[in-house]
Amino acid sequence: MSAGRPTRVTVIGAGTIGLGWIALFAAHGLDVIVNSRRPEAERIVVDQLRLFAETMPGGPRDPAELAARLRFVPDLATAVADAEVVQENAPEDRDLKRDLYLAIAAAAPPGALLLSSTSTMPPDEIASDLDDPGRVVVGHPFNPPHVIPLVEVVGGTRTQPQAIAEAVAFYRSVGKVPVVLRKPVPRFVANRLQSALLQECIHLVREGVVTMEELDRVVTHSIGLRWATVGPFEAFHLGGGAGGLRRWLTHLGRGLEQSWQELGHPRLTEECIDFLGAEADRTYGSGNHDRLSVERDLKQNAVIDALSGIESQRRQS
Amino acid sequence: MSAGRPTRVTVIGAGTIGLGWIALFAAHGLDVIVNSRRPEAERIVVDQLRLFAETMPGGPRDPAELAARLRFVPDLATAVADAEVVQENAPEDRDLKRDLYLAIAAAAPPGALLLSSTSTMPPDEIASDLDDPGRVVVGHPFNPPHVIPLVEVVGGTRTQPQAIAEAVAFYRSVGKVPVVLRKPVPRFVANRLQSALLQECIHLVREGVVTMEELDRVVTHSIGLRWATVGPFEAFHLGGGAGGLRRWLTHLGRGLEQSWQELGHPRLTEECIDFLGAEADRTYGSGNHDRLSVERDLKQNAVIDALSGIESQRRQS
Repeated sequence: MSAGRPTRVTVIGAGTIGLGWIALFAAHGLDVIVNSRRPEAERIVVDQLRLFAETMPGGPRDPAELAARLRFVPDLATAVADAEVVQENAPEDRDLKRDLYLAIAAAAPPGALLLSSTSTMPPDEIASDLDDPGRVVVGHPFNPPHVIPLVEVVGGTRTQPQAIAEAVAFYRSVGKVPVVLRKPVPRFVANRLQSALLQECIHLVREGVVTMEELDRVVTHSIGLRWATVGPFEAFHLGGGAGGLRRWLTHLGRGLEQSWQELGHPRLTEECIDFLGAEADRTYGSGNHDRLSVERDLKQNAVIDALSGIESQRRQS
Repeated sequence: MSAGRPTRVTVIGAGTIGLGWIALFAAHGLDVIVNSRRPEAERIVVDQLRLFAETMPGGPRDPAELAARLRFVPDLATAVADAEVVQENAPEDRDLKRDLYLAIAAAAPPGALLLSSTSTMPPDEIASDLDDPGRVVVGHPFNPPHVIPLVEVVGGTRTQPQAIAEAVAFYRSVGKVPVVLRKPVPRFVANRLQSALLQECIHLVREGVVTMEELDRVVTHSIGLRWATVGPFEAFHLGGGAGGLRRWLTHLGRGLEQSWQELGHPRLTEECIDFLGAEADRTYGSGNHDRLSVERDLKQNAVIDALSGIESQRRQS
């Protein structure tokens, strides 16, 4: 990667996550090579870009302008031959990823930064067959990557610290909020938290305490709103009054430990999946995926804009 | 309670939660009787109202105007004698609450709606000594009640359905988003979800995967933002693409069950509380509680405003 901000990025895979990266990189003026084995890749990407262009952070973009920054190169070696950054979005299959990284490493310039969107495999797993895996870094986005700011950055035992620093700088340059994990942990941080919450959500709906719609309404109108503005630790630090988190934990710690004992442990049987699937279709409909996704993303952008407005007022005062 | 919207509300207890209700009810033009045993209650409430007035939904209010709607009545029987609605915020002590409800029931008009902010005790517990507990309903707010929209509404086995309906209508009339629980469950819904997430947050910080600040940054920039706009079920329904939640669970269900096995189980030892307390003080400071709380609430209001802006645009289009 050259000293300045990279200008040539290769995106491998054009599924939902790949598409989000493609839209984001193009919107930030990068030249994007799209590598996909889907025969119809160009048509699908250009078509989907129209939807993504509506929900770009900072306001809608011209889809034709975004599409003009893309070049479709179905051959992997050719696609990465001149890349400064590669963002890989292949399926979560260990053998497939290992083979892919062997092929990428053989064809990409030695200075290229090799970023993986994987949500499950640290660099030690996907780059284990490489002689020098020093520039392989996980850059795990949250869906959709063009909207949600977080990127979890994860290095492996042989990753160069410099590569981590470059990944952080690169993601910041396209408006992301990177957080570097200090230790590998299965499924990284955000998905573990999401999984912990979802377990209790499924329990409460299965038990008939609330419907799915009511559960979602509870979350959006309390903890979701709270956690969009302050994280859980800051929230409880403030909840403790002048004594902070220490006071909160001292007063409520026993109740908190007790509450952990009381959390539910649902089983995802076929019957349970059927029940939840049917309830979701009934509650949110089916066949309206694109419209609901656009709505979600417009709302998410509105929240981001509102919060950055408050931040900049604060800095000026 | 009379047929129209209540105009006379008695708030019992003027701690943090009571104060939030007082501010909210006054801002909605209700006549508020404040019943508190603190000798300095009037001075404290009027002083704190200044802070709350800054962060009222819809914009700052004149604290003197809010204060003008309050009357301080230290004697409980007198305070509830003419109430249409009572919102009780006494400490979470079962015996204390039971005695309190005996005294309230003896002095309040028979038609008064008796609402409790308790976060732990369903009506069957706090009203068990009453001959007729039919009008006792839990209305559990999220802190601070003048900002966070959710109120969890919980009835008991002897609660009148009409009282639940009146509680819902009353909370809606002051801008809240009530959700009625269909079954009692310990700690209700939102706090159980919060507790599930916090358990994993503490685990990850204790294990050194991320610092407290990094953990909070992960949440605010991914799942917090997401859950402010769509609840977890809608989020995964959209995450499943055209196949919805059913497809998502069918593809990722096994991984999800596996992830539940991998969640952490921290113990809240004294040492752990010390560690987290010190980290919170270092990260967020101490002695700046009021300023950080105002900042949190301005941000939360900005998010609420942004989302209601999007909703009304959508309805017009």
